[in-house]
Amino acid sequence: MKKPSVKVAIVGASGYSGEELVRLLLNHPHAELAAVTSRHYAGQTVAQVFPKFASHPKSKAVRFTEPNADLLAKQAQIVFLALPHGVAAEYAGPLLAHGCQVIDLSADFRLKSAELYREFYAHDHPAPDLLNKSVYGLPEIYRAHIQDALLVASPGCYPTSVLLPTIPLLRAGLVQPHGIIADALSGVSGAGRKAEVDYLFCECHESARPYSVPKHRHLSEIEEQLSLAAGSHVTIQFTPHLIPVNRGILTTLYLAPTRGLAAPNDNPALNLEIRDCYQAAYGKEPFVRLLDGKALPDTKNVVGTNVLELAWRLDPRTGRLLVMSAEDNLLKGASGQAVQSMNIMCGFPETAGLM
Amino acid sequence: MKKPSVKVAIVGASGYSGEELVRLLLNHPHAELAAVTSRHYAGQTVAQVFPKFASHPKSKAVRFTEPNADLLAKQAQIVFLALPHGVAAEYAGPLLAHGCQVIDLSADFRLKSAELYREFYAHDHPAPDLLNKSVYGLPEIYRAHIQDALLVASPGCYPTSVLLPTIPLLRAGLVQPHGIIADALSGVSGAGRKAEVDYLFCECHESARPYSVPKHRHLSEIEEQLSLAAGSHVTIQFTPHLIPVNRGILTTLYLAPTRGLAAPNDNPALNLEIRDCYQAAYGKEPFVRLLDGKALPDTKNVVGTNVLELAWRLDPRTGRLLVMSAEDNLLKGASGQAVQSMNIMCGFPETAGLM
Amino acid sequence: MKKPSVKVAIVGASGYSGEELVRLLLNHPHAELAAVTSRHYAGQTVAQVFPKFASHPKSKAVRFTEPNADLLAKQAQIVFLALPHGVAAEYAGPLLAHGCQVIDLSADFRLKSAELYREFYAHDHPAPDLLNKSVYGLPEIYRAHIQDALLVASPGCYPTSVLLPTIPLLRAGLVQPHGIIADALSGVSGAGRKAEVDYLFCECHESARPYSVPKHRHLSEIEEQLSLAAGSHVTIQFTPHLIPVNRGILTTLYLAPTRGLAAPNDNPALNLEIRDCYQAAYGKEPFVRLLDGKALPDTKNVVGTNVLELAWRLDPRTGRLLVMSAEDNLLKGASGQAVQSMNIMCGFPETAGLM
Amino acid sequence: MKKPSVKVAIVGASGYSGEELVRLLLNHPHAELAAVTSRHYAGQTVAQVFPKFASHPKSKAVRFTEPNADLLAKQAQIVFLALPHGVAAEYAGPLLAHGCQVIDLSADFRLKSAELYREFYAHDHPAPDLLNKSVYGLPEIYRAHIQDALLVASPGCYPTSVLLPTIPLLRAGLVQPHGIIADALSGVSGAGRKAEVDYLFCECHESARPYSVPKHRHLSEIEEQLSLAAGSHVTIQFTPHLIPVNRGILTTLYLAPTRGLAAPNDNPALNLEIRDCYQAAYGKEPFVRLLDGKALPDTKNVVGTNVLELAWRLDPRTGRLLVMSAEDNLLKGASGQAVQSMNIMCGFPETAGLM
Repeated sequence: MKKPSVKVAIVGASGYSGEELVRLLLNHPHAELAAVTSRHYAGQTVAQVFPKFASHPKSKAVRFTEPNADLLAKQAQIVFLALPHGVAAEYAGPLLAHGCQVIDLSADFRLKSAELYREFYAHDHPAPDLLNKSVYGLPEIYRAHIQDALLVASPGCYPTSVLLPTIPLLRAGLVQPHGIIADALSGVSGAGRKAEVDYLFCECHESARPYSVPKHRHLSEIEEQLSLAAGSHVTIQFTPHLIPVNRGILTTLYLAPTRGLAAPNDNPALNLEIRDCYQAAYGKEPFVRLLDGKALPDTKNVVGTNVLELAWRLDPRTGRLLVMSAEDNLLKGASGQAVQSMNIMCGFPETAGLM
Repeated sequence: MKKPSVKVAIVGASGYSGEELVRLLLNHPHAELAAVTSRHYAGQTVAQVFPKFASHPKSKAVRFTEPNADLLAKQAQIVFLALPHGVAAEYAGPLLAHGCQVIDLSADFRLKSAELYREFYAHDHPAPDLLNKSVYGLPEIYRAHIQDALLVASPGCYPTSVLLPTIPLLRAGLVQPHGIIADALSGVSGAGRKAEVDYLFCECHESARPYSVPKHRHLSEIEEQLSLAAGSHVTIQFTPHLIPVNRGILTTLYLAPTRGLAAPNDNPALNLEIRDCYQAAYGKEPFVRLLDGKALPDTKNVVGTNVLELAWRLDPRTGRLLVMSAEDNLLKGASGQAVQSMNIMCGFPETAGLM
Repeated sequence: MKKPSVKVAIVGASGYSGEELVRLLLNHPHAELAAVTSRHYAGQTVAQVFPKFASHPKSKAVRFTEPNADLLAKQAQIVFLALPHGVAAEYAGPLLAHGCQVIDLSADFRLKSAELYREFYAHDHPAPDLLNKSVYGLPEIYRAHIQDALLVASPGCYPTSVLLPTIPLLRAGLVQPHGIIADALSGVSGAGRKAEVDYLFCECHESARPYSVPKHRHLSEIEEQLSLAAGSHVTIQFTPHLIPVNRGILTTLYLAPTRGLAAPNDNPALNLEIRDCYQAAYGKEPFVRLLDGKALPDTKNVVGTNVLELAWRLDPRTGRLLVMSAEDNLLKGASGQAVQSMNIMCGFPETAGLM
Repeated sequence: MKKPSVKVAIVGASGYSGEELVRLLLNHPHAELAAVTSRHYAGQTVAQVFPKFASHPKSKAVRFTEPNADLLAKQAQIVFLALPHGVAAEYAGPLLAHGCQVIDLSADFRLKSAELYREFYAHDHPAPDLLNKSVYGLPEIYRAHIQDALLVASPGCYPTSVLLPTIPLLRAGLVQPHGIIADALSGVSGAGRKAEVDYLFCECHESARPYSVPKHRHLSEIEEQLSLAAGSHVTIQFTPHLIPVNRGILTTLYLAPTRGLAAPNDNPALNLEIRDCYQAAYGKEPFVRLLDGKALPDTKNVVGTNVLELAWRLDPRTGRLLVMSAEDNLLKGASGQAVQSMNIMCGFPETAGLM
């Protein structure tokens, strides 16, 4: 019996997320990588552009082409867009019109509001009519919608690290929707494969620094999603930092439980409620790991995987709840999650090609 | 005219802080390094233990000895203790009795309260009668007291990165004393030169992780000092993270201004007040650098120096004040600051040997 | 139809090589990980010891035990030994006597000569009678012998990086057997998960250093194997260096072609001969990648894979042939290669579980 | 009594070598930094361009200007050129004509032969008449010539690491001039502050790779200098590798003693001769550290200093002499050495501003 299979294409496959998509889809048991595009590398094979994949049997057969929506629509059923925001929207419309399903890794279809997009991305949305058709591709939260989606907006790396820990608590009313702080550390691949002095080895190695303080673009999708979970408008504090690792995001969240803690010890009852809440939300999720005992998240335990690690601590001294998460920014924070969505859209096992 | 000079000794000079003390004091224009001790390296010269100092003319002349308070008191006027907590106190008493001045880099004399010490360090204080004689060695805050001190408790690395940004604001009543959050990133040298698996290269490289959540020992001295500045008991949230750099601490502080911000733009009046507050506190301090314009702290700009970098942002979206600081954990966070105290105690220029 | 499958065990699974073996065998389509042992971790599950594998369905089911040859022989058909040299031999004999097949990752069975072992490992060989029964587990060279082997001595990390580039050239008589120099750079995982100050993060980061100069232990197996390939006794120069990466070995080999080069340009005829020699040896090998064009080996292109990358340059200025190789020291240099041998021994596809 | 002092300028001060020159000259007891130029940063202060120097009292007073030889000649007596090759020569001529002394850190005046320059740098030499006026700025070798030089060509980073270990042995006839191999590892700052993808953090971190094999440009000056030392034409093998450290070069040299070694132990007599040779050459040099005992060079022991570390081993197994050196590529390999030359030219203590 032949395995079910889908033809896929990647538009803009030369960055770090694109490279991971190539790797995942080359090795996916149910996907056939039919096309990869890159203006810069058009004409070269995958083996030439990514030497590390050169031992894969298909790497010499797949050749980069110029991006062309009409052509792509003939080659693939599912098209991944790994393009800068603003550019992705130019391809999504034509591809959808041709009957393709689109999984967009840019920010173009993550927001429901075109005004919010303009506020955070500093230009008008290029295809506002498509905003309502897109599904926010966070499978643990929107699995049912992804199943039937034609256009999936795969979440940003930081948003994933904030939303998965926070949404179940907000939905359960265990934490207050206001006053949330997310302090996050990201590896340098998050900045993309851009030839800029700021991301040279010597500028990043032995360096730790905050950036985009206090209004990073990812705030927009984080707040929109948290507001949906809370049922009221949520404004959060979000501080990203750049640290000298290739990959990985470590996020520490400061939350206020809706009912106070009884000092001097932590609150066993509330602790159990949180545990139950996370168990209900993620106990059976293959890509969320709830740490127990004394374990705390560590990016080195998730890099190379599609897993988000999560631990929490109640602090009876301050009355706060701390939740910490770790993920690979290029996998659960980007390409892995996009493939997870593809698996759901196609009815493949959700872990196919991701374990 | 001969330069004024003081004989100094370092007890426990084999760790990373001790090594930096050796470097600073070997090169100090007014200090003569009369003795260095280490049980482990007794008998070896500084050149043998620290090959990187072997080109210094004095490195072959100074030899490590077993620590002996009676002997040290004859050799040096000022003795630096770079020992584990609990052990430092054993040396401080005898040295003071002999008439030495002591600069202790451990936690033993940083707290005023022996109970607090017991709570955070899990054993009784070994010399509680000395607690009231010690001066907390944060020169920008306690310069006048350090001038006459016999026993200086040099602050911890994390506390320095939290206290310098926060104390002026609390003293001026610009921020609320409750609800403060300090989220900090530290290089691995903060863990000391200990042969433990957790600090092996392969366990730290490509890793970012929180630890000691939610009750790190440094909380005790941070809260004691902030309470003094606020005039009321302060409890804070403090989350340390380990990141793969050799040196450097980057701390992000979340504070609540005492009066609200007027959205949607930031509050120019409050911004000026904060600027004036910091200018008054640190405008003439050689070792605090107030960043202006778009600059944010970066550990790579302070590593190797005794400088703490500081920047702040008001966030009109959340009403919070963010203050970010960067320092070298082994210099402004340990040995550099200890030498700064020595300069004050001896009447040397405060920047001597530190620029 | 059920897939063919073999029960396997790992003795000494707590180091870096052991950890990689656990990962490879947990995910191997034809292997069932029946037992893992570690004196240190006995009683804990794989999920507890290696948090990064905790999302694997079997990680909570497999529990570390004390090593016991009798018991292991009942649990597994193939036993991997990831133990220090000297210790491995204690287990190999009893396991073989019980009818197990043994793949040893230590140095204990790599040499044919017990005297050479004594010279380089500074103690008598613990089981000299087994030396002639072992097969050197370099599949590209000894595939046919591995097929029938009961005891495979999996090669060292450095030797693999030297032997694969050199053996075909020596066998073909293209390079002289004397005067060979191998200059190699290794990531810190090569030192194992040992709590020693030398391998602390701060001692390795921003450091590059030679070690074991001029007589590293791996010389013994390199020279024995090169002598076999050359048909005469070969003595080489081998200089290992430690560099601050987690994984990867980059080896640069300096060889003398048997016939001279004609300056000023390189020698097209000899170049073709070398290319043909490598093509004949490795053109169809899944785990050796011959680079062409301007490409040179880079450890980042092989880390995480079982592939060795190889490129060469003739230098008409000096008459030398340079061959450069890159591999993952824990995979092609250790655990990946051991699993490759297992695949051969069991008649599985050689790439099973390794792509 | 006022200290003697000289006015200095730096042309092209925005790269990594330029930055180090700024640091050294700002802090130099006998130099007054009168001008720094950079087309890119003209108009900004040193404090703005290099935040890490912003605490230096002079950093806000010194402002970058457009480079202009006429103006520079009025401002400074000694002008450092930290420009790309080809460009440096355009400034050297006019500055010399105005009576300045020039210390050039580029490759423009390191070679005596304009043909060799054309062969290795792929364009005609822009000022061949100046080649004979320049002195190769390796103080330990050419101190007397530097003393009277008007134009110093400061050596390249790799050449320094090869020449200092090799020249005394060649001069003494202890090693053969042919067959020399230099295998070198360099930190990424060696590539300069260039916005190229190859030097991005993610392309270098967890990577080790050879480059410019087999004909790196630095070969030209290495061979010219070794030929002068040997009294005959020397051709060497030189293989540079890029490793993920900010700073540091580690070079391993393979040399053939002129008389054979007597196995099985090393040759005590030859060993003593080598020691005496190095002692005679460098025993009193402040910036060459001869390691003894079991110590081997380590870049972490020299980074941040102007010292080159050196150790050697005779290998009785192969008959070769291995010499290993470590230096900071930006200091002894560039800016530190340039300042050392300045000290000699001006009659300052040679270590002024460099300890």
